[in-house]
Amino acid sequence: MYRTETCGDLRLSHVGNQTTLSGWVHRTRKMGGMTFVDIRDRYGVTQLVFNNETNAELCDKANKLGREFVIQVTGLVAERSNKNTNIPTGEVEILVEKLQILNEAETPPFTIEDNTDGGDDIRMKYRYLDLRRSSVRSNLILRHQMAFETRRYLDQLGFLEVETPVLIGSTPEGARDFVVPSRMNAGEFYALPQSPQLFKQLLMVSGFDRYFQIAKCFRDEDLRADRQPEFTQIDCEMSFVEQEDVLQIFEGMVKHLFKFVKNIDFAEYFPRMTWHDAMKYYGSDKPDIRFDMKFVELKEAVLGHDFVVFDSADYVAGICATGCASYTRKQIDELTDFVKRPQIGANGLVYIRCEMDGTYKSSVDKFYSNDDLKAIAEMFNAQAGDLILMLAGAKTKTQKALGELRLEVGARLGLRSKDVFKPLWVIDFPLFEWDEDTQRYYAMHHPFTSPKPEDLAYLDTDPGKVRANAYDMVVNGVELGGGSIRIHDSKLQNRMFELLGFTPEKAEAQFGFLMSAFRYGAPPHGGLAFGLDRFVSLFAGLDSIRDCIAFPKNNSGRDVMIDAPSVIDQSQLNELNLVIDIKISESK
Amino acid sequence: MYRTETCGDLRLSHVGNQTTLSGWVHRTRKMGGMTFVDIRDRYGVTQLVFNNETNAELCDKANKLGREFVIQVTGLVAERSNKNTNIPTGEVEILVEKLQILNEAETPPFTIEDNTDGGDDIRMKYRYLDLRRSSVRSNLILRHQMAFETRRYLDQLGFLEVETPVLIGSTPEGARDFVVPSRMNAGEFYALPQSPQLFKQLLMVSGFDRYFQIAKCFRDEDLRADRQPEFTQIDCEMSFVEQEDVLQIFEGMVKHLFKFVKNIDFAEYFPRMTWHDAMKYYGSDKPDIRFDMKFVELKEAVLGHDFVVFDSADYVAGICATGCASYTRKQIDELTDFVKRPQIGANGLVYIRCEMDGTYKSSVDKFYSNDDLKAIAEMFNAQAGDLILMLAGAKTKTQKALGELRLEVGARLGLRSKDVFKPLWVIDFPLFEWDEDTQRYYAMHHPFTSPKPEDLAYLDTDPGKVRANAYDMVVNGVELGGGSIRIHDSKLQNRMFELLGFTPEKAEAQFGFLMSAFRYGAPPHGGLAFGLDRFVSLFAGLDSIRDCIAFPKNNSGRDVMIDAPSVIDQSQLNELNLVIDIKISESK
Repeated sequence: MYRTETCGDLRLSHVGNQTTLSGWVHRTRKMGGMTFVDIRDRYGVTQLVFNNETNAELCDKANKLGREFVIQVTGLVAERSNKNTNIPTGEVEILVEKLQILNEAETPPFTIEDNTDGGDDIRMKYRYLDLRRSSVRSNLILRHQMAFETRRYLDQLGFLEVETPVLIGSTPEGARDFVVPSRMNAGEFYALPQSPQLFKQLLMVSGFDRYFQIAKCFRDEDLRADRQPEFTQIDCEMSFVEQEDVLQIFEGMVKHLFKFVKNIDFAEYFPRMTWHDAMKYYGSDKPDIRFDMKFVELKEAVLGHDFVVFDSADYVAGICATGCASYTRKQIDELTDFVKRPQIGANGLVYIRCEMDGTYKSSVDKFYSNDDLKAIAEMFNAQAGDLILMLAGAKTKTQKALGELRLEVGARLGLRSKDVFKPLWVIDFPLFEWDEDTQRYYAMHHPFTSPKPEDLAYLDTDPGKVRANAYDMVVNGVELGGGSIRIHDSKLQNRMFELLGFTPEKAEAQFGFLMSAFRYGAPPHGGLAFGLDRFVSLFAGLDSIRDCIAFPKNNSGRDVMIDAPSVIDQSQLNELNLVIDIKISESK
Repeated sequence: MYRTETCGDLRLSHVGNQTTLSGWVHRTRKMGGMTFVDIRDRYGVTQLVFNNETNAELCDKANKLGREFVIQVTGLVAERSNKNTNIPTGEVEILVEKLQILNEAETPPFTIEDNTDGGDDIRMKYRYLDLRRSSVRSNLILRHQMAFETRRYLDQLGFLEVETPVLIGSTPEGARDFVVPSRMNAGEFYALPQSPQLFKQLLMVSGFDRYFQIAKCFRDEDLRADRQPEFTQIDCEMSFVEQEDVLQIFEGMVKHLFKFVKNIDFAEYFPRMTWHDAMKYYGSDKPDIRFDMKFVELKEAVLGHDFVVFDSADYVAGICATGCASYTRKQIDELTDFVKRPQIGANGLVYIRCEMDGTYKSSVDKFYSNDDLKAIAEMFNAQAGDLILMLAGAKTKTQKALGELRLEVGARLGLRSKDVFKPLWVIDFPLFEWDEDTQRYYAMHHPFTSPKPEDLAYLDTDPGKVRANAYDMVVNGVELGGGSIRIHDSKLQNRMFELLGFTPEKAEAQFGFLMSAFRYGAPPHGGLAFGLDRFVSLFAGLDSIRDCIAFPKNNSGRDVMIDAPSVIDQSQLNELNLVIDIKISESK
């Protein structure tokens, strides 16, 4: 071992001891005849002292140390006169007697500090240096702790971690698979799993009873912000359970992580909200309930005042921004621009200011009298000083737009603190989503999700009305995970495939092994999966999942550090029976 | 929840309680007016009783249950008159009051018993049914426990589990990579990692200090017995350590697993053997030291007796099989056939029987007198009744053949019990292996392994003589893991690449990011990796790693259950800019 202690170990109680430390030169400074060097490792930073008077040669050597040199020092632990109370080792320093340079270092392309001078691109290229920064490393330490505590919690409850295969078969449904050409089976391909869904259901058929896996999953999608081609799921499944059992076990897991990692206690049950209410009151299936600001639907109240925008709209609703009557014209214009952005797509924004003098000022004064506006304001319980913001249009689209506006206003009002955590179960999702373009139903979760028994009758008459035994865990507006009780009856499963437009042949080709497994005694089962990357970034207060992944890819799916993907040898292509044929894309 | 207890919970202390169980119908039998059903889940088997006299309708329903039906029953726990002492629940039975069929089952294609009537192929096709057998499931429970305890041990020692990427770049060196075409980067490919080697070394450069990962690795090799295209490594790396530190930490880990999982204590240090001695005395770099039977080299002793086979051989050596003088002609012929098999490749086998009357009988009596044979026998400390077996030929090949013979004889003598565990560190591996075909040196471990400092001088003069800071953990002749202290000095690393025949350009192209990382302050570091699959199969006493993998592939790399790999849609190929072009292989 190159050290007796780490750079984070030494305290006042060690004063007088001999110590040997190894680490990186973090900072050096000369003051008179003294040279001070901060030595850094994963565990901390310790101050080294070299005295030119007592050992000029050694001090000279210290003066030549460059940033990020790897050194080993031996010396006496001494009490510092000017203590640094910001770090646990700040009360001591090492009077160095021996200095060995273990490795030299070129000057790094950016400073190894929490607030570095390096931009995103250079930090990604030199990710191994970026990872030296304690702010980045702490995210990965948190990730380790969360994964470990997840395993500990689930192990204690009898869950078995089972590794499912990474080289599986491709299923054309859903998102695009990454595929892997098989050399031994010419012309055939493996696919990388988008989730272990089918395998975990097979494990239930196998009687594993309680399964989990922290599993890498893969999705070949065009990368939007905060998507990675490979991501990690906490994947879980249980047998002989109903929805309530799953919710309780995994609410327990989330509480355990909050307690263990963040020392936050949730004494009460997490609130539950139906998908219907989430859409109605928050315009989102993952409402941020750190603040209230619920939607109020206004169609009835605003109808018949010759304001054609409202009169012609399917849906009119608004939110009340407490204390925002003082917003300037410019601020309201900003909000209007916000909702008119193409991603949000509203046509305009209507406001009512509840003035301090009890009057109302609105962008639609022309159509609504003061009493009309007052009546609307009362529907929000708006007080003098509040600002009401209204949108109108097609229902679903307008709900979503108003949901985005709500989040924006909440952020502006400082109601979305990263130190406050508001978990929520969203339940009773619809089983199907109707797609206008293809004129067919799609499974909202996936085709194995079971309908609620009380809604089974609608399967034939009104599929859109069928609710699923499906649930999402949402914290602060982030969907951390979700799952469902699965169909374990093969007749019902076949009926589902039919409703989803699968021919029996297509269903057999894609899910034949699961359907065949179900014929040999499938137990009732259900489960869920959490996104570990999102879970960690939520706990770390990060804006992007990228910052809690050791070696992430950029938006083109490239690892710029190792420069992957890359071309491969012709001989590799030959062995795989592949020829590259790049078509000139029409869109270029 | 569909149950109040599991099928493994109930004991005498529960007698009189009401219980609800759910599980699979394991066995049914009628005796007089009674029907007995064994209900099974992951946790055990419990006997259910249906009485035709007290409830004919219910009993009738029970009589119609098929094997592997999924049922839920409610009833009273009662004491059994004829207790089954083989199972923990064998003292009680359930007097069933309510029976619900949760799912029916077709008759499975083989019996769900430890000794099943199903052959390998059908069990793999219906792996989800095979996994219901407790003998198979217990392997996966063991795997879960070993992985979890590994994590617990390493977490306590400050190791951080860091996920390294699965989509990386291809390196033409070493075994063949699986590759993944990139849609977003046309004509380019990712590769799946054969190990996280480069990334874990980068994490050391990043100051992570102690890293581990239980990681999926991939190798596109022609599958010999007991190879899988995807396998799992316990991958570890530490900074500021020397070989001794690594050995101690991971010897501790192996001891922890032995203690925790098998309740075996190893009080002493594991023995250590140099690679040189392992080859000299056991003809293997992974000696099985459950039994002794060391090689005795005989070249000097046998020379000059006009026996041309021995006289012309580079190397003559033998082993002494205790008590085997009584082997029949047929048994000795079997051993001769064994060593002459092409995989072993010896030309013949010479024996000396140490007869009970003090005389010696040999297949080379013609060349050696009784006194000559006695002198040889004494070199083995052979006793009356022992059998000496000798091979001659080129040194390395003959050592390996004699090593195989030693294992075969050990097995015949019952010296290789699966209940005895003999761990061993093999150390001081050569740094390089000379390859006759290509007339160049190859790295025996990998190009990042550091030479022993005392052997550095030979790097230029006699590379074959340089020993590495490399080590393997061997248990019962199985290589469980191995690793090395790495080179952290970029000059030495460059010298290594040179010796291994890399041009600077080629080294830069393949390992540029690592070499560049090393310029920014790499700490001394080293580590190792264990094969989790082998580790589990060793502990489970299995002959194949396949039996401790939930969903293994066959020898053609196929998953016969899900029928992967398979053809993919033309549209997928188009998106990937690929054309399949299967060449007719000349060898067909």
